[in-house]
Amino acid sequence: MRTLILGATGGLGSALALALKGQELLLSGRRAAELRALAEKVGGQALPADLKDELEAKALLEEAGELDLAFHAVGSVARGSLREAERKAVESLLEDHLLSALFLLKYGRFRPGARLVFFGAYPRYVQVPGFAAYAAAKGALEWYLEAARKELRREGVRLVLVRLPAVATGLWAPFGGPPKGALSPEEAARKVLEGVLQEPPPEVLEV
Amino acid sequence: MRTLILGATGGLGSALALALKGQELLLSGRRAAELRALAEKVGGQALPADLKDELEAKALLEEAGELDLAFHAVGSVARGSLREAERKAVESLLEDHLLSALFLLKYGRFRPGARLVFFGAYPRYVQVPGFAAYAAAKGALEWYLEAARKELRREGVRLVLVRLPAVATGLWAPFGGPPKGALSPEEAARKVLEGVLQEPPPEVLEV
Repeated sequence: MRTLILGATGGLGSALALALKGQELLLSGRRAAELRALAEKVGGQALPADLKDELEAKALLEEAGELDLAFHAVGSVARGSLREAERKAVESLLEDHLLSALFLLKYGRFRPGARLVFFGAYPRYVQVPGFAAYAAAKGALEWYLEAARKELRREGVRLVLVRLPAVATGLWAPFGGPPKGALSPEEAARKVLEGVLQEPPPEVLEV
Repeated sequence: MRTLILGATGGLGSALALALKGQELLLSGRRAAELRALAEKVGGQALPADLKDELEAKALLEEAGELDLAFHAVGSVARGSLREAERKAVESLLEDHLLSALFLLKYGRFRPGARLVFFGAYPRYVQVPGFAAYAAAKGALEWYLEAARKELRREGVRLVLVRLPAVATGLWAPFGGPPKGALSPEEAARKVLEGVLQEPPPEVLEV
């Protein structure tokens, strides 16, 4: 199963890579040294890239070749009130969540029956004061994917939109750590894989 | 009722302006000559601005002063497959739909009880092949607003998210005209006003 993990050096991406050890793994992320260390550990190939850069994203996906499975474990979080909303912060969130997914679907090559896994959000957790820009990025991603799902179906490619509760990763560092009850990355990765590898895969997987 | 219409030279915005003739109307749009003609017709004030420009948006909203009612009748449509997706096109849709709303909520001043009206979309109409980028812009807007709604409630400001079927406006020109069964702008404006002016206003108005 030729598998690409985008955001492999993140908390969830790393946990997915470890859980998939033994598969044919292609790992991408921005931090090249960490990525190489992870690739050695799981016997995968390190393909460092910044997915905000279209040429880098394109080169990465050409190098990755035909995939059976891909995880888009990419994202960032920011907080701010409506009155403090900053154009750059919003654009950066949209680049991290939406644009990287758009490039994966634009340049990725997928074998028939391939599964593409993305991470949306529970509306009630993100549509809250202070997180409007983050919510917008997740809403943009979810709506993009629901349109994309219908195009991909024609190619026999299945899209799984996963909604997770908070996961205890570095994303939460700026907010004093993850909220109570957050899943560990290992637990989240296990639940994601269990759901995604079902036959047939669910369209939306709520963990 | 001091009322601001953003996108007043658009099909829906003009129809709203005509239906609100007699109110204290502030009309904004990019096409200054058309805007002045409309303002004369309805007895309003023309405030031309390009809402993609933060300084113009800020100046406009300062000049508009304290509002009782605001309509964000701003948007654009584009079509393209996942493989043809263009970064610029997606960014432009997000600027038109999301960024202009963000600036309205960032710089607008609202009287207690004010109503702010935005136009979302029925997921089933926009989450379709060829419209993923448009869907993303509408999803971003809707999720941003649902988070914003909770912040605005503290200020006693009410947000109405309107979902309309297709409206026969110039937006459809690049696609050979509006789809069958599209509402006329006058009919859409009448239904929107009828819903928005209810007491209390609905959170989501599906026309």
